[in-house]
Amino acid sequence: MINQAYTGMLSEKDIIFEIFQYSLEKAKEVGPENIYDFSLGNPSVPAPASVNETISELLASADPLTLHGYSPSFGIMEVRQSIADSLNQNFNCHYQASDIFMTIGAAGALAHALRAVTNPGDEVITFAPCFSEYKPYTAGAGLKLTLVPADTASFQINFEAFTRLLSPSVSAVLINSPNNPSGVVYSTETIDHLARILTEKSLEYGHPIYLISDEPYRDIVFSGTDSPYIANHYKDTLTCYSFSKSLSLPGERIGYLAVNPECEEGKCIIEICPQISRTIGQNGPASLMQRTAARVCMDTAELSIYEKNKDILYKALSDYGYYCVEPGGTFYMFPRSPEPDAFAFCEKARGKNLMVVPGDIFGCPGHFRIAYCVPTERILNALPVFKELAMEYGL
Amino acid sequence: MINQAYTGMLSEKDIIFEIFQYSLEKAKEVGPENIYDFSLGNPSVPAPASVNETISELLASADPLTLHGYSPSFGIMEVRQSIADSLNQNFNCHYQASDIFMTIGAAGALAHALRAVTNPGDEVITFAPCFSEYKPYTAGAGLKLTLVPADTASFQINFEAFTRLLSPSVSAVLINSPNNPSGVVYSTETIDHLARILTEKSLEYGHPIYLISDEPYRDIVFSGTDSPYIANHYKDTLTCYSFSKSLSLPGERIGYLAVNPECEEGKCIIEICPQISRTIGQNGPASLMQRTAARVCMDTAELSIYEKNKDILYKALSDYGYYCVEPGGTFYMFPRSPEPDAFAFCEKARGKNLMVVPGDIFGCPGHFRIAYCVPTERILNALPVFKELAMEYGL
Repeated sequence: MINQAYTGMLSEKDIIFEIFQYSLEKAKEVGPENIYDFSLGNPSVPAPASVNETISELLASADPLTLHGYSPSFGIMEVRQSIADSLNQNFNCHYQASDIFMTIGAAGALAHALRAVTNPGDEVITFAPCFSEYKPYTAGAGLKLTLVPADTASFQINFEAFTRLLSPSVSAVLINSPNNPSGVVYSTETIDHLARILTEKSLEYGHPIYLISDEPYRDIVFSGTDSPYIANHYKDTLTCYSFSKSLSLPGERIGYLAVNPECEEGKCIIEICPQISRTIGQNGPASLMQRTAARVCMDTAELSIYEKNKDILYKALSDYGYYCVEPGGTFYMFPRSPEPDAFAFCEKARGKNLMVVPGDIFGCPGHFRIAYCVPTERILNALPVFKELAMEYGL
Repeated sequence: MINQAYTGMLSEKDIIFEIFQYSLEKAKEVGPENIYDFSLGNPSVPAPASVNETISELLASADPLTLHGYSPSFGIMEVRQSIADSLNQNFNCHYQASDIFMTIGAAGALAHALRAVTNPGDEVITFAPCFSEYKPYTAGAGLKLTLVPADTASFQINFEAFTRLLSPSVSAVLINSPNNPSGVVYSTETIDHLARILTEKSLEYGHPIYLISDEPYRDIVFSGTDSPYIANHYKDTLTCYSFSKSLSLPGERIGYLAVNPECEEGKCIIEICPQISRTIGQNGPASLMQRTAARVCMDTAELSIYEKNKDILYKALSDYGYYCVEPGGTFYMFPRSPEPDAFAFCEKARGKNLMVVPGDIFGCPGHFRIAYCVPTERILNALPVFKELAMEYGL
């Protein structure tokens, strides 16, 4: 019989996709230039030219049987080495190829990390606001997900609530910095504080609490932002990365899991990853994309547009009276909703053809997400609508 | 704590890989020309030129933001349409784009199919000899896998044992034709017999028994072989396909799940597939590979070499006195072991630098697998070794 759990998931509406679909429909009616769609987190700048150049070089020079052939279940050795090298160079760490496991984007990395360091029934803690997919990711691994309420004043970590929720049944803590949806980057102080607690509690509970760090926005950090490389601050860190945002390759699904060389169980964690792949039918990213990523992994798309967009939008919204924590990275902003019910606010905005997403779906009611990975012109055109809404709410 | 189930899987030896590794080591000692390695099922012919040409065309003509951008969770619509069209043209069926779900190879297709039509604890039946990965694939979906013993005289289906093992707790039957490791193709008679039983028992049990058809070798069928398109013979068929073998693209991990348009629950099965993806972190194959496959899906690599290899090897082995069911497709052959313990035989062959795989790991003791996706020269060079073994065993 058709699976009941998955059928049940169909009734959970995909609100972001619904808003996006509405935008497309409405654009047919009033023209796309009159729709201010900030719903989707899709890169708005193309991949750097080096990506297509590298693919062309590989097609021209590599033996097709090798180029398109099976890759080892851990990933292609040279690719793993290139990624280790790039991490070592960028963050002054000491990864070896054997600490890297190639995955189908960050989602694949999280699927492996979550399964590797837990057993079914274990608890994983994450922090609001957070990516809405953490719920199915953990549920799929048979885990209980506990959400620590947001520190809405800073969108750093609410440590008071966190320490209250920690218990011996917690196997892993899942963080996402730079953060979707807040755009906030956890400071060195925050990460060190978190690391101290995890170290202390690991000792107290008699088992390591792993830190799973979801970092697809790591390379989109704005000037002046303190942005520590998280694994350098806590030994039991599993870093989940994707080239989707840094290289604007979201469709190519290429990422990796990097296990901190200091992690005592690190060898075992990497060793069981191919066993995890076998049970979820996920046998590594496309060979051509692995080889391409290896050669361009020190490169990025033209990411400066996101900071420019942030500057314009943040300044204007602040001027209009919105309360918003200034993003330190990503291409998201998460202002406080002018009325407590963010759904009602987003509905009102939608009436003016402005598409933003209620914070409730990120576990943080009373806020709304703006994805400003859009042409700057769209932001400029949307400002009068944000202003009009502010005035209507008497901000 | 590190996951116990995956750690436990580490102790199951990967025998094929071990044999392959031994080959590589031994080749260093005696020279690769003196190693007759038939262990791995890797295509030995390159992808057709159209693959690289198509990739180059896409790189040159498509907008990079679209080309490398997110694809919908079901797969890119034009790609799904191309695949439906190719199936309709090749097999005279009536798929629409909405019946196709793009996956990361056949493994991804099976991961979705197995989860879609079962609930945890259900039973799935498959037939020996079978691909060794069916065990982790079903275990990962929380299913019980029951293996029907082989009909070793023909490697068609042992219907007597099958009907005995069928029960109301069986949700799906998993088949693989053309078969790895036997090379045998299920005949129209076999498939019609199977379909009659499934139809009858579905009615009796009051729920459909789905037929999950794993078809990565569908395009490698030798002249004169009766090779029915399975979904045309049973309405509740989920077809799992990969371009790995037909286009020699195993590393690119591109495949699909096609649900028979006649299947009553078909719409729901496709609809829940993205929900399954969310729980196993498997968000579709690489966009570039999807678009490439769509354009070349009517093409194949130069597959005729496999039939040539089969002809030489089958004739010679028969002459030497081995008993073997003649393969109708694939690039495998599965002769009876000259002694009952196939491990002992394979060990003896290994002593002569001939690498073949014991049938036990395919659920069929007393046989051994030869993967003849190798240069024809290697087969010719290996014949004297096969002959020598036959003589030693007094065949």
